Amino acid sequence: MPHVELTEELPGIAGLLDHYADTGRVLSELAQVLLRGSDGLTPAERELIATYVSSLNRCVFCTQSHAAAARHLLPEGSTVDAVVRDYQGAPVTPKLKALLSIAARVQGGGRSVSDDDVRAARAEGATDREIHDTVLIAAAFCMYNRYVDGLATWAPDDPAVYDGIGQRLAGVGYIRVMEREPAAVAA
Amino acid sequence: MPHVELTEELPGIAGLLDHYADTGRVLSELAQVLLRGSDGLTPAERELIATYVSSLNRCVFCTQSHAAAARHLLPEGSTVDAVVRDYQGAPVTPKLKALLSIAARVQGGGRSVSDDDVRAARAEGATDREIHDTVLIAAAFCMYNRYVDGLATWAPDDPAVYDGIGQRLAGVGYIRVMEREPAAVAA
Repeated sequence: MPHVELTEELPGIAGLLDHYADTGRVLSELAQVLLRGSDGLTPAERELIATYVSSLNRCVFCTQSHAAAARHLLPEGSTVDAVVRDYQGAPVTPKLKALLSIAARVQGGGRSVSDDDVRAARAEGATDREIHDTVLIAAAFCMYNRYVDGLATWAPDDPAVYDGIGQRLAGVGYIRVMEREPAAVAA
Repeated sequence: MPHVELTEELPGIAGLLDHYADTGRVLSELAQVLLRGSDGLTPAERELIATYVSSLNRCVFCTQSHAAAARHLLPEGSTVDAVVRDYQGAPVTPKLKALLSIAARVQGGGRSVSDDDVRAARAEGATDREIHDTVLIAAAFCMYNRYVDGLATWAPDDPAVYDGIGQRLAGVGYIRVMEREPAAVAA
């Protein structure tokens, strides 16, 4: 049972965004700018970073929702599971592997990102914008994951529910999902 | 040296908010709604939670900036150091102590907030809104702290600099500081 009363039976972050609309609006806007930005990283790469960090934080709702979104954005959906299992062996670019290494450092604590980590990402072609966005996406999911689990929201078991969430997030993004269809919001 | 090039010599998060204006605008708005909300917790209590979590994350810039803001919002500035040192023995309400315990759990990971932690806060009079805001403020500072340190921004040594930042944050808040005086932004 969630630690606070929520008016709707919405899972994960959705019930929180709906019930606490003042913070919900800004949190949705942040997810939109971080996960649908078009400068540098693709939306699929952004969702993979969000999924991976959420899995490190063991946040079931966020991991499954963003994994589903990434599957709808990628030509090969199986890439998502490979990244969560062992990103170094996954079929993603060397640049994304170097950025996922930075994301893992951020998850452990900001102070552990080293000059060497950043140098390795640059050697694979990562730009300042991509390094910046990787750090901020990883940091933001250390917030979203703690928000979702710190208030003990519930996570559906049915993979079809996440597939539906992922399809809507991939199609219309974070702000329009919330405006049009509160039940579909996930971050 | 920061991991990414920043155009201005602004310390901590200020240089990031300035250089990356798209994310900076939303991050400032989030700080404003979380730290200056007037429903339930006072701005001083919100700043104390932010300061305490930042100290647990060992983020010097955020700890010093929000400690300074809290000093300007409280009748007794020495309360801030007492909270960071040992909040259980600090001259704050039993309700705030129980909420700081929840904030510490969130810092360690969202899944560690227990029903007992929440029950203890309710027994001291905490409302749903106050429990919600405590969890979200603590979670958000797990993001801000990682953003500031994950990109290796610099932190001033001079206490007078933080006092100036705190005075402006206490007086005009997070959004108006950014619009009027980019050099003064802190979150």
